[in-house]
Amino acid sequence: MTSGSTGNAYFKQQVSAQLSRLQNQIPSSYHLPESLLDNPPLNVTSIPETCGILTKEELAITDLDATDIVTKIRSGELTAVAVVTAFGKRAAIAHQLTACLTDFFLEEGIQRAKELDAYFKVHGTTIGPLHGLPISIKDHMPVKGRWGSAGFLSTLQISSDDCFLTSVLRDLGAVFYVKTNQPQTIMHLESQSFYGRTLNPHNLNLSPGGSSGGEAALLALKGDGGGSIRAPCAFAGLYGIRPTSYTFPFSGILWYQNGNDGTTVSGGPMCRSARDLEMLIKAAQSTEPWLRDPSLFPIPLQLPNISQKKLRIGVMFHDRVVMPHPPVLRALRLAETKLRASEEVEVVEYVPYNHKEGYSIIRGLYFYDGGETIRRLLKDGGEDILPLSEWVISPPHTRNLTATQSWELRHKRDLFRHAYLQQWREQQVDVLLCPPYTGVAPRHDTARYWGYTAIWNLLDYPGAVFPTGLVVDPALDPADSLASSLGPEDSYNRQQYEPNVYVGAPINLQIVAPRFNDGMVLAALNVIERIVKS
Amino acid sequence: MTSGSTGNAYFKQQVSAQLSRLQNQIPSSYHLPESLLDNPPLNVTSIPETCGILTKEELAITDLDATDIVTKIRSGELTAVAVVTAFGKRAAIAHQLTACLTDFFLEEGIQRAKELDAYFKVHGTTIGPLHGLPISIKDHMPVKGRWGSAGFLSTLQISSDDCFLTSVLRDLGAVFYVKTNQPQTIMHLESQSFYGRTLNPHNLNLSPGGSSGGEAALLALKGDGGGSIRAPCAFAGLYGIRPTSYTFPFSGILWYQNGNDGTTVSGGPMCRSARDLEMLIKAAQSTEPWLRDPSLFPIPLQLPNISQKKLRIGVMFHDRVVMPHPPVLRALRLAETKLRASEEVEVVEYVPYNHKEGYSIIRGLYFYDGGETIRRLLKDGGEDILPLSEWVISPPHTRNLTATQSWELRHKRDLFRHAYLQQWREQQVDVLLCPPYTGVAPRHDTARYWGYTAIWNLLDYPGAVFPTGLVVDPALDPADSLASSLGPEDSYNRQQYEPNVYVGAPINLQIVAPRFNDGMVLAALNVIERIVKS
Repeated sequence: MTSGSTGNAYFKQQVSAQLSRLQNQIPSSYHLPESLLDNPPLNVTSIPETCGILTKEELAITDLDATDIVTKIRSGELTAVAVVTAFGKRAAIAHQLTACLTDFFLEEGIQRAKELDAYFKVHGTTIGPLHGLPISIKDHMPVKGRWGSAGFLSTLQISSDDCFLTSVLRDLGAVFYVKTNQPQTIMHLESQSFYGRTLNPHNLNLSPGGSSGGEAALLALKGDGGGSIRAPCAFAGLYGIRPTSYTFPFSGILWYQNGNDGTTVSGGPMCRSARDLEMLIKAAQSTEPWLRDPSLFPIPLQLPNISQKKLRIGVMFHDRVVMPHPPVLRALRLAETKLRASEEVEVVEYVPYNHKEGYSIIRGLYFYDGGETIRRLLKDGGEDILPLSEWVISPPHTRNLTATQSWELRHKRDLFRHAYLQQWREQQVDVLLCPPYTGVAPRHDTARYWGYTAIWNLLDYPGAVFPTGLVVDPALDPADSLASSLGPEDSYNRQQYEPNVYVGAPINLQIVAPRFNDGMVLAALNVIERIVKS
Repeated sequence: MTSGSTGNAYFKQQVSAQLSRLQNQIPSSYHLPESLLDNPPLNVTSIPETCGILTKEELAITDLDATDIVTKIRSGELTAVAVVTAFGKRAAIAHQLTACLTDFFLEEGIQRAKELDAYFKVHGTTIGPLHGLPISIKDHMPVKGRWGSAGFLSTLQISSDDCFLTSVLRDLGAVFYVKTNQPQTIMHLESQSFYGRTLNPHNLNLSPGGSSGGEAALLALKGDGGGSIRAPCAFAGLYGIRPTSYTFPFSGILWYQNGNDGTTVSGGPMCRSARDLEMLIKAAQSTEPWLRDPSLFPIPLQLPNISQKKLRIGVMFHDRVVMPHPPVLRALRLAETKLRASEEVEVVEYVPYNHKEGYSIIRGLYFYDGGETIRRLLKDGGEDILPLSEWVISPPHTRNLTATQSWELRHKRDLFRHAYLQQWREQQVDVLLCPPYTGVAPRHDTARYWGYTAIWNLLDYPGAVFPTGLVVDPALDPADSLASSLGPEDSYNRQQYEPNVYVGAPINLQIVAPRFNDGMVLAALNVIERIVKS
């Protein structure tokens, strides 16, 4: 297992206790052979099928998407106990291969599932739209009685209560069984914490981003302040959406910069299908969470009827700051070609407004205490700073601002938002199709440009990622040695690319629309995915 | 005319030039006799009727509300030229008595009205729902080619363009003709600036708040960050609403703390009738301003149908910090009695959550640079600080915060909002009926407690004020010398009260509901006003 963050003697002792706890939580019957763990293949996604821990029926269950699962439980075809057991086994396997978990409590999940099954048996109905659905929860979202942290050992705690989202999901019938790893600071597009470094199951060379346990997680709920939902989904071939801020329950998470609202973090689902995204958001909104949480907007998701007009799609190959790696460009070219050939949509080249400036603004807003809080929390836990934590709080982007300097930066943000929307409107596109990242997934410790997701956080534009079905193929994706560099961040990204390192990684794309157009994003996703995969 | 702020020689010269400009803008045919100006009555509201400057027809026009005016222009019964001329005359009179204006450009208004009348003659239709409606605009809202400022001489300028709201209103057919005074800093609940001190037309002893020219202004558009719409309307016996932030166009105003979004300023109308509030908001929203301004929420005003259930009204006599003056309590008691006697509504006593804490939080958020920006802008213009400016930026409320201190204060705000909503929900009230201020209107330089309006700014709850039809009557409103003080702010407020000083001032009340319940506020206003005035 790859290692996590380091620290002093106190830190080591605490972490060691946590790792033992986590190891002991996983029943020995779910253990993979030592020989496999010592010498895993580059791509471990087929191990759940071959290791013999899951039955054939359980494997079939873990191939279903959330929509199918809740439907089959509602019809009596599946029990909640069978479902959570299957996903629990799969999560245990995934964790041993990728270090994706921070808490494993399948017994508690099975107990809850038993109660749900009993309810169903007595009443013949479900308790809510998510009845029996196993949902993995990111470490920073409190689940009552379970471990959680804000990305530092010094913030580790057992949660005395659910946060708002987990309480909403619980009331809707969801079953919790694991919590998933996140990076130190929760602000890397990778996932190395004191629990360890999480690996990408498609290619262990690569990071899964801030992702949960890849294939193991049926559905995960995360926060996205710079790409933390979209990047991991893109890296693991999943579907994910970062909704417009404050349209999805998110209060009460563990976080170390509460009140720093210069840029907002939005919660959202990571799923196995596009329809699951819609199902999950609508389920959470069906409880009218805005009546209880004053930060939420009463704006329910509504997919517009786009059959009446031609959907106008802007396509952006690069943001003029960093050129994506060849596999991403290949997928985007293929998508563009298919979309242009379709009668159903109109395709235009999208001209981005100044993404370089926008990226600089949001980087400045993330930690305008100059990183002081992060350094304090590390010190409190005797924890060493990781390279990506050091990078994210370094100048020139991160500075300690006075009150008036912070107002100036926020005002710059507001003017940028106005100017961006104006240029978007001039291009009259309904949605934008673009890369979700500078490559298919980062090699470890290299996720040092967030522009393809963070720009939409700054603008608060909802964005969804989806798998194209393509994967990296060295024969099709040679390095492009001729193009001239767009700048230092581009040169850095280019240096990382070697086709063989990235082999087999899934290629995702991203769909974006202006603020509050979440329904348009999902409606367009349905159309675009169908055409691209036809 | 009462004097404005003072300053150095440069300041005096600049201000003198502006005052001459303003004086020269008012035609001599609209001048009131020197004898009247030297010895005005305490209540000057009847002077427009008696001075002979307006014809009988013009007086009738200025008695109409906005809804009637646009209806009569649309039916051809009135011309836009006749309407703006009448209001221009009335504004000129009001200004001479109360120093309410900062720019007077009736000729420009008449020219615009001529074009509108010509359009109507040719096409037989209006150009929009506000066709021909004269609207006075607060000094800090840019109107192309006219003077404007952010409350300091150093920010005085001729606007090169309309701000978003004035451009929206112009497109809807509104006619601009005057701009109205605001206080130094725009953050007093009174209106003393370098242009002078604006007086309350109902009682020259008193301040009209941040108000426009009282009776002269048919309709004014203002910003409200602590009570700047509701307080002036309450002091002048008008109708006003502070909508939920970012539901009404407001970007592009002149302001000196852009980016300080710890608390938000919301724009809204001040009107002569309750129905005008609804008409104006719906007109502005009919242009779908959220498509052009990324800060706006796409949440159009909708009045709920409250005939189906009994409206549940909470009544709060005081906020446990400052006891309102006797006339306000009298009006509230009368309203409560009438409401309790009605079969149509249910009345309960409202228990306020900690308003003292909320007030302290918002005061801290207003100027968390410690007032540095205000002092700099005063210095730039050679302008002395006014007592209420000094008060508003003084410790303990105002401090210069570091980045992390400001996050803590914002987080405290967010927790307060959660706790407040929870307690509101437990009381299950639809709306709250409460005082809009600690008295009917402040004596000059005494508006030193904003809690009755600012608490709703902190919570971002929409609030409307309306006149009860009652006025201060020393026989009915003796001072209450027996009650014990609630604290220093209460003692200060109590000291101000002498029935004879406040005689004749109108008494308003305020209606509030949680964020985004603007429609509920207006629906309840219709019901409550009808019952209270029955």
